[in-house]
Amino acid sequence: MSVCPFDHPILGGLLGDEEIAGYFSVEAEIKAMLVFEAALATAQGKARLISEETMSAIVDAIAAFEPDIDRLRMAVSTDGVVVPELVRQLREAIGGKAASYVHFGATSQDVIDSGLMLRLKPVLAVVEQRLAVFLRALADLEKRDGERALMAVTRMQPAVPIRVADRIASWREPCERNLERLRAWMVDGPTLQFGGAAGTLDKLGDKANAVRTALAEELGLADRPQWHSQRDWIADLASTLSLISGSLGKFGQDIALMALSGDAIELAGGGSSSAMPHKQNPVPAEVLVTLARFNATQLAGMHGALVHEQERSGAAWTLEWMILPQMIVATATATRLATELATNIRRLGNET
Amino acid sequence: MSVCPFDHPILGGLLGDEEIAGYFSVEAEIKAMLVFEAALATAQGKARLISEETMSAIVDAIAAFEPDIDRLRMAVSTDGVVVPELVRQLREAIGGKAASYVHFGATSQDVIDSGLMLRLKPVLAVVEQRLAVFLRALADLEKRDGERALMAVTRMQPAVPIRVADRIASWREPCERNLERLRAWMVDGPTLQFGGAAGTLDKLGDKANAVRTALAEELGLADRPQWHSQRDWIADLASTLSLISGSLGKFGQDIALMALSGDAIELAGGGSSSAMPHKQNPVPAEVLVTLARFNATQLAGMHGALVHEQERSGAAWTLEWMILPQMIVATATATRLATELATNIRRLGNET
Amino acid sequence: MSVCPFDHPILGGLLGDEEIAGYFSVEAEIKAMLVFEAALATAQGKARLISEETMSAIVDAIAAFEPDIDRLRMAVSTDGVVVPELVRQLREAIGGKAASYVHFGATSQDVIDSGLMLRLKPVLAVVEQRLAVFLRALADLEKRDGERALMAVTRMQPAVPIRVADRIASWREPCERNLERLRAWMVDGPTLQFGGAAGTLDKLGDKANAVRTALAEELGLADRPQWHSQRDWIADLASTLSLISGSLGKFGQDIALMALSGDAIELAGGGSSSAMPHKQNPVPAEVLVTLARFNATQLAGMHGALVHEQERSGAAWTLEWMILPQMIVATATATRLATELATNIRRLGNET
Amino acid sequence: MSVCPFDHPILGGLLGDEEIAGYFSVEAEIKAMLVFEAALATAQGKARLISEETMSAIVDAIAAFEPDIDRLRMAVSTDGVVVPELVRQLREAIGGKAASYVHFGATSQDVIDSGLMLRLKPVLAVVEQRLAVFLRALADLEKRDGERALMAVTRMQPAVPIRVADRIASWREPCERNLERLRAWMVDGPTLQFGGAAGTLDKLGDKANAVRTALAEELGLADRPQWHSQRDWIADLASTLSLISGSLGKFGQDIALMALSGDAIELAGGGSSSAMPHKQNPVPAEVLVTLARFNATQLAGMHGALVHEQERSGAAWTLEWMILPQMIVATATATRLATELATNIRRLGNET
Repeated sequence: MSVCPFDHPILGGLLGDEEIAGYFSVEAEIKAMLVFEAALATAQGKARLISEETMSAIVDAIAAFEPDIDRLRMAVSTDGVVVPELVRQLREAIGGKAASYVHFGATSQDVIDSGLMLRLKPVLAVVEQRLAVFLRALADLEKRDGERALMAVTRMQPAVPIRVADRIASWREPCERNLERLRAWMVDGPTLQFGGAAGTLDKLGDKANAVRTALAEELGLADRPQWHSQRDWIADLASTLSLISGSLGKFGQDIALMALSGDAIELAGGGSSSAMPHKQNPVPAEVLVTLARFNATQLAGMHGALVHEQERSGAAWTLEWMILPQMIVATATATRLATELATNIRRLGNET
Repeated sequence: MSVCPFDHPILGGLLGDEEIAGYFSVEAEIKAMLVFEAALATAQGKARLISEETMSAIVDAIAAFEPDIDRLRMAVSTDGVVVPELVRQLREAIGGKAASYVHFGATSQDVIDSGLMLRLKPVLAVVEQRLAVFLRALADLEKRDGERALMAVTRMQPAVPIRVADRIASWREPCERNLERLRAWMVDGPTLQFGGAAGTLDKLGDKANAVRTALAEELGLADRPQWHSQRDWIADLASTLSLISGSLGKFGQDIALMALSGDAIELAGGGSSSAMPHKQNPVPAEVLVTLARFNATQLAGMHGALVHEQERSGAAWTLEWMILPQMIVATATATRLATELATNIRRLGNET
Repeated sequence: MSVCPFDHPILGGLLGDEEIAGYFSVEAEIKAMLVFEAALATAQGKARLISEETMSAIVDAIAAFEPDIDRLRMAVSTDGVVVPELVRQLREAIGGKAASYVHFGATSQDVIDSGLMLRLKPVLAVVEQRLAVFLRALADLEKRDGERALMAVTRMQPAVPIRVADRIASWREPCERNLERLRAWMVDGPTLQFGGAAGTLDKLGDKANAVRTALAEELGLADRPQWHSQRDWIADLASTLSLISGSLGKFGQDIALMALSGDAIELAGGGSSSAMPHKQNPVPAEVLVTLARFNATQLAGMHGALVHEQERSGAAWTLEWMILPQMIVATATATRLATELATNIRRLGNET
Repeated sequence: MSVCPFDHPILGGLLGDEEIAGYFSVEAEIKAMLVFEAALATAQGKARLISEETMSAIVDAIAAFEPDIDRLRMAVSTDGVVVPELVRQLREAIGGKAASYVHFGATSQDVIDSGLMLRLKPVLAVVEQRLAVFLRALADLEKRDGERALMAVTRMQPAVPIRVADRIASWREPCERNLERLRAWMVDGPTLQFGGAAGTLDKLGDKANAVRTALAEELGLADRPQWHSQRDWIADLASTLSLISGSLGKFGQDIALMALSGDAIELAGGGSSSAMPHKQNPVPAEVLVTLARFNATQLAGMHGALVHEQERSGAAWTLEWMILPQMIVATATATRLATELATNIRRLGNET
């Protein structure tokens, strides 16, 4: 056991997801924050809040900027958030009069929440695409084995005969709906957060809305008033992630139960045992159940964080940081394992 | 403390909701199940699966039927579900040849899940309407006090001045979105569950789809293939409920914090203390936080129940029974208390 | 579905527990609070804080007191807690000068937390005794079938042969430890709560400790300084309850899996199905899993309530009221069903 | 946001714990597993189950062994557990006839669960020692400010005057009890897991118990029969961790509320804001609340994992891997931050 199951050198091979984890590396995180700061300067330049020269100085310095990670780490232990020190370092890098205009009118939460949104777009596109791949794998299964016979099992007891296609439908339909839910979120969810110290963009005067709109456009995020203490966007995403992993967990549970009892499945690619060479453990099936239960557990924390005190809750916001990225990787891993499991099924059901 | 906080003779006055609880009484529950059985007979009669005479015998007997609750209670302790004994009693009441045609081709889950859906429609309409009332109360607050001054609070520290309207927006906007989410569910969610023993309507032959469609129409529920092991509908509703109570919990938390510190609020209707006559406790504000945390906690259980084994999981389904109705009442109570609290605010903010 | 699964007229037959529920009725609740108030007067009389006459007037009036439940219900909707109105009614019933001395120096939390402790003693004794009965049932099983053969199952796959006694040990040993944990709590846990308005017994002057000790003795509770905002006692009890139901849930899960696959179990007393007369559903086994997952879910809420603001948190305390009694009944029901299930096992394992 | 908050290059400065994280590194994890395998060979050598020569060959090879981490990572993606590949690599490293005797009679769970226990001993000693340091810091606070005046706050409203010492007692007493709980676990909890394929040590014949006892002694772990499917040890530890962080969360919450309102506290070491240079955010206070809520959330997952199917549940066991180490680090971090916060308090309360 390592601290974190997802980016551990060993266990990460099972539970982690390199494609997704890349978006949550420190490099990706800082890059997203810098993209925000550069876009902010650009938007403020266009709105003539800052001079073109200042804008260029900021944008150029950011392009060449290399953060001092150790100082960031040290500062976050005091500030609770990385942005104050990052801005300090940026100001050093920019120098001169322009330095004081980086991050102008913005606050930590603008940078971090918008930076998250910038990364969520490609991350969720991966999850979306994998869900689609899984649905195709199920369609292939149905084509091959759909008309074969299966004994339905209700309340852990054999019930009446059904077709394999009937069981597959119970895996496919929730995933189709979850795909729709995810796509709906991808349309409405990735929203610019930009409010300044207390949400009112007080430093930008009558150019506040124009800068916000320009910034949203620069970043490719939806333009809406700040939502810094309105975490329903985020909790709703967490719910969708848990619906995805939960529905895939049902698939995993069913496969594990079929592997345990009877002869209705033939499964390749089982895991080996250190004590019993004859065994073929249905590892991806079990892990799908694990990931479903993991995300269901975490969801309580994400919804608890809806109780966000006044204009900014350090307590509730930090709780999101601890949970949401893990839920995302758990969901992405689940989509990967589900397809792996589906393609490992050599036969479902029996001859009619 | 009573076992259940919602229908307790005393505590129910605070946490319960008589309007909603009526839909979860034993009478309402049985009535919904009987509505299902009568509509099923009607649909089967129209499809000529059963004779008109049999249909009438069933429908008439159901109209006059009085269940023996004690026998239902005893039977559920063995069967785990009320339907087998209810059908037994119905058959006794119908008598003759028609008796064997009641519940024809259906199974317990059809009756219980569809019965739940029948009750969710009016129940959610109450929640919807109350959320709208709360939004109007916020609009009134904003009209009266919106331009007054407030000190923003970020990370539990005074930040910069904002207007009262800025704070109110952070309460209103999530509730507006939650209202949309609830309405979206109310369009797609209330769905007929009808699948028979293992979901295939095996006893209805080639009339299966026709009966299902007719039954959905009789009941005013959406007509879709059975979803007995696809609990994403239900878990998604639970998420929406928790988003509602969570967003109202943020409102409650803010009011409680404002009541604690400073002079930015004047609140009527506080609760009295048995030890300190001078106190005015902001009870509805606190209870909104409680209900938010209650629902966030419960949500983990509802999403855990997505891992629904094979064609029917007694374990996961029973878990839904234990949690979902409480989440519904908690949400409804939160909408009631939120309006009570909003109308108790005599003043928000300070003179500018 | 009813609001509350435990005291519902029908579902209560499965999930409820009449023996336990009695301790959480409104009558039992009020009685415990009255026992506290009478004992408080007695202790204060003995300490000569109030006159013998006043003491008698209070004790006698309490003995004859009949609360007006409707007024209690109405008051709790404003006060958030039943005690202020209960004390008001008591004062009316006592009348005269003595009236002002009932509840003297105490606060709502003293009455409610101590009243809970008074009821927990007999309630936990029931759970303790039932766990012991379950352990005896397991011992009987082991005596009868312990030497029979069983195929071990690891990671949902047959592993190597073991004896039935090996499997039974994995059910028995955690329950033995849980019984010890419960007994340890029963020694240390049932503690008087008595602190007055803010925990300092400020109104009792230098007689505070003497009254507290006498009160604890009157009530048969441990005498310790007030713990009104120290909820570790309560959260620790919740953990123990969840360990009990969780370990019984493992037993239920194993039985359900054995009933599903292979011939290693013969089980009597299955539940009937409304659609499939041939089925024998392992209802108590499934419900043990349900109750384990229910309590595990609730535990997050009980531990969340450890974050109890300052001298008294209305929000966190009310959350305990909503969850703890349900956890207790769920645990008690689990102990009942576990014994029912164990005695329904006609045969475990196969001939060697 | 990174995937894992604890070992992230930046956020780890706030939420991580380098002292603890060392025990959960891949090196520490593998080292603990190798210690197990070497001790097993030693115990089997002493019991003459393997020859002295074989024993030495194994022990020496392990001492010099360097694992191929990439192959471990790849294997775990199939096997679900690292041990089969680790044993394969060990056998390659040992070579000759002795190779087949490494891991003799053991299974993956023996290695991983015992390896966890080996690391828990020093890890929990750190937590224990830090809790004691925090208690000393509180004692210092009490000495300095205990007699100063404080306004008690009940239900988010000023109540009656108390002393600072009264408030401090509500922070200290739960931590004292939690320290006792932790110490009790440290006596009974760190237990050898050794059962072989299905818990019966079937390959060791009549030497099974002797080897187990010798192995426990070698490892300094308690000697008890295998507990591979009895997860109450682990869930009970998780409860204790959550009690610790929950009680510290109450401390953090109180400090954050005091910092927000009134003048009863003077706090050094606040975090800076990127938008408001005047602010001093009470970051450690907030993060204590975060960690309390994080652990309370996770606890539901750990107790859910009590439902451990038959002789080994891949699903439930993997869930423990995902959650328990994070709970441990969260708890350790909380103890660190609590002392940091306590020593940052320059003044509590007001003059009397």
